Amino acid sequence: MQMAVISAAERSAMARARELALEGPRGINPQVGAVILAPDGSTLAEGHHRGAGTPHAEVDALSRLAPGAAAGATAVVTLEPCNHTGRTGPCAVALIEAGVARVVYGSADPGEASRNGSGRLRAAGIDVTRLDEPEADALIADWLFVQRAGRPFVTVKWAQSLDGRAAAADGTSRWITGPEARAHVHGERSAHDAIAVGTGTVLADDPQLTARIEGRADAPQPIPVVFGDRAIPETAALRRHPRPLRTAGHELDRELRALAADGIQSLYVEGGPTLASAFIRAGLADRLTVYLAPTLLGGPRTALDALGVETIDEQRRLTVTRLEQLGSDLLVEATTESEQ
Amino acid sequence: MQMAVISAAERSAMARARELALEGPRGINPQVGAVILAPDGSTLAEGHHRGAGTPHAEVDALSRLAPGAAAGATAVVTLEPCNHTGRTGPCAVALIEAGVARVVYGSADPGEASRNGSGRLRAAGIDVTRLDEPEADALIADWLFVQRAGRPFVTVKWAQSLDGRAAAADGTSRWITGPEARAHVHGERSAHDAIAVGTGTVLADDPQLTARIEGRADAPQPIPVVFGDRAIPETAALRRHPRPLRTAGHELDRELRALAADGIQSLYVEGGPTLASAFIRAGLADRLTVYLAPTLLGGPRTALDALGVETIDEQRRLTVTRLEQLGSDLLVEATTESEQ
Ligand SMILES: NC(=O)c1ccc[n+]([C@@H]2O[C@H](COP(=O)([O-])OP(=O)(O)OC[C@H]3O[C@@H](n4cnc5c(N)ncnc54)[C@H](OP(=O)(O)O)[C@@H]3O)[C@@H](O)[C@H]2O)c1
Ligand SMILES: NC(=O)c1ccc[n+]([C@@H]2O[C@H](COP(=O)([O-])OP(=O)(O)OC[C@H]3O[C@@H](n4cnc5c(N)ncnc54)[C@H](OP(=O)(O)O)[C@@H]3O)[C@@H](O)[C@H]2O)c1
Repeated sequence: MQMAVISAAERSAMARARELALEGPRGINPQVGAVILAPDGSTLAEGHHRGAGTPHAEVDALSRLAPGAAAGATAVVTLEPCNHTGRTGPCAVALIEAGVARVVYGSADPGEASRNGSGRLRAAGIDVTRLDEPEADALIADWLFVQRAGRPFVTVKWAQSLDGRAAAADGTSRWITGPEARAHVHGERSAHDAIAVGTGTVLADDPQLTARIEGRADAPQPIPVVFGDRAIPETAALRRHPRPLRTAGHELDRELRALAADGIQSLYVEGGPTLASAFIRAGLADRLTVYLAPTLLGGPRTALDALGVETIDEQRRLTVTRLEQLGSDLLVEATTESEQ
Repeated sequence: MQMAVISAAERSAMARARELALEGPRGINPQVGAVILAPDGSTLAEGHHRGAGTPHAEVDALSRLAPGAAAGATAVVTLEPCNHTGRTGPCAVALIEAGVARVVYGSADPGEASRNGSGRLRAAGIDVTRLDEPEADALIADWLFVQRAGRPFVTVKWAQSLDGRAAAADGTSRWITGPEARAHVHGERSAHDAIAVGTGTVLADDPQLTARIEGRADAPQPIPVVFGDRAIPETAALRRHPRPLRTAGHELDRELRALAADGIQSLYVEGGPTLASAFIRAGLADRLTVYLAPTLLGGPRTALDALGVETIDEQRRLTVTRLEQLGSDLLVEATTESEQ
């Protein structure tokens, strides 16, 4: 077996390639970046993927070089070069034709049709090495999840009193949680591709569903998705959202597949209780973020309703992945045994 | 003003006096310990209070000395010597008659009839100094609470899933929390004078209500108190409790006063949901201990029911005083704005 010796120049080129990757959009394709290094370790060209139908990152980088300029060079790419003729030709072939001597890549390509580009490169006599850093898969974690599960990664969020209520008996709930927790929610919104609520929440609260982050007027905005059959009023605040509104029906699994097909890799489910419970009941909540306020409300307005747990053996055990105090509130992050 | 200079011998005598205090029983009277020091700082005698109707700690200590042996000595007492002729004469007078030259005490006596023993001592020419350490009031915190509030200090405990349920839809709940949380509950039971449940819990669970602590067969056992009008079955496990069973009605305030009158300084309310909610609703929960299990149950079996919070302005805000991971569970300790 060949030793995976990776130079310092290649390591820093990989970090740079990850930065370049993030300049491309999230969508159906993964975010990928590439850097072409001369044999002396200096950078010849950089590239990244700009979305479905446009050149892949390594081809984008090669396209910036004069013919022959990449001969003997090293291509550093965040994702294994593809072996698949889609709207663009296989990247493995482009690299072979450009005459590169070596390829260093981060994540392995999990795609049925696209994978094993490294095998094709090796068969052409190119030295191929994987730089196995946790940052590689983290960069495209949601995309990898979609490849595996066929649906977006789902976070279900809710805020509750310590005793599990979302509102007082009359439905009033402003503000159970404090400003730190609310600011945290806006950061989470911005970190997701889409944000979902049920029609119940739209009709009761008329939410904006925008990410409002102090000092970041350009924060990425999630696509708003409303689940349910009831009509959304013409005057709803959601209709003034910067991203076009999507609607969805009750068949969660099918709706999630449709979202993934449109390039939505991650979905943030913000409620209300009916929709959140439906996601959990269906085993479609991969991650929970629960904001616990130090208050008691009692009464009928529980933050979750029935989850189909008839007897204790059917309880939905959680794995708590993070516990954080946000002002006087507590954030509990957990994963569930979801169906992927 | 006189300088409160306290010698090292007096400080360590106070620590010893606190140990002695704990040898006495909890009840209507506070636990008090006393040490009599010779002018050279050596110990002449030790004493503690052994319960209502028996000598107070300083008198107990003096009684171990030959007449005249305490002349010129220093009495170190955890509580200000009383000025009150009850079943025993005022301690202040006993100290004056014994000829002590100096008194060092810990907590001030809050009693209407008994206080200002230090004034009486000073009037007799004795040097009186308070050693103001947090341990002093901590030693008799529950007794001080009873003096102020006229009722025991009440802790309401419950275990719940993250979403605030005490059981699955069919009522099954073993085990929501893990062994560490359950062991912690047994420690808490043993640290309280009495433990309360409603008849609902007795009839549903037939609990023993004993403190079972690994390696401590002699752990103090709380007095079991059952609230409610329904009869307790003759075969109930509670009837084999080492302490005699008490029963109580629905008027919580009145029942608490009766418990205090019988020397119960602290009460641990273990449920169920109806009784716990009644205590919180009545503003009679001074401290909450909530064991949060990392699981979701959903459904109708909430750990608390209605608390009289009709609208959000009436919410019962908590002050979280402790957050601790117990195995995979989380203990949230909080205080409420209770009525004292
Ligand atoms: N504490 C929190 O974190 C939080 C967050 C958001 C909202 N809320 C509160 O929640 C309340 C609204 O509660 P809600 O439960 O009525 O709102 P909701 O969950 O937003 O909406 C419920 C609706 O979702 C639709 N839906 C779509 N797919 C579904 C499925 N698979 N299963 C069930 N329903 C599905 C149904 O709409 P159709 O009937 O139209 O088909 C259903 O009536 C408001 O008072 C709001 O303030 C609290
Ligand atoms: N998760 C936990 O931490 C936990 C702890 C304990 C029990 N549990 C569960 O709770 C269930 C029993 O629930 P529960 O609510 O029926 O039990 P409960 O609270 O133990 O008992 C309710 C009874 O308490 C009596 N009571 C006395 N004073 C009262 C007052 N001021 N207000 C209201 N009631 C008063 C009434 O009895 P009368 O009708 O006889 O007058 C009432 O029916 C069981 O399934 C048990 O497993 C859970």
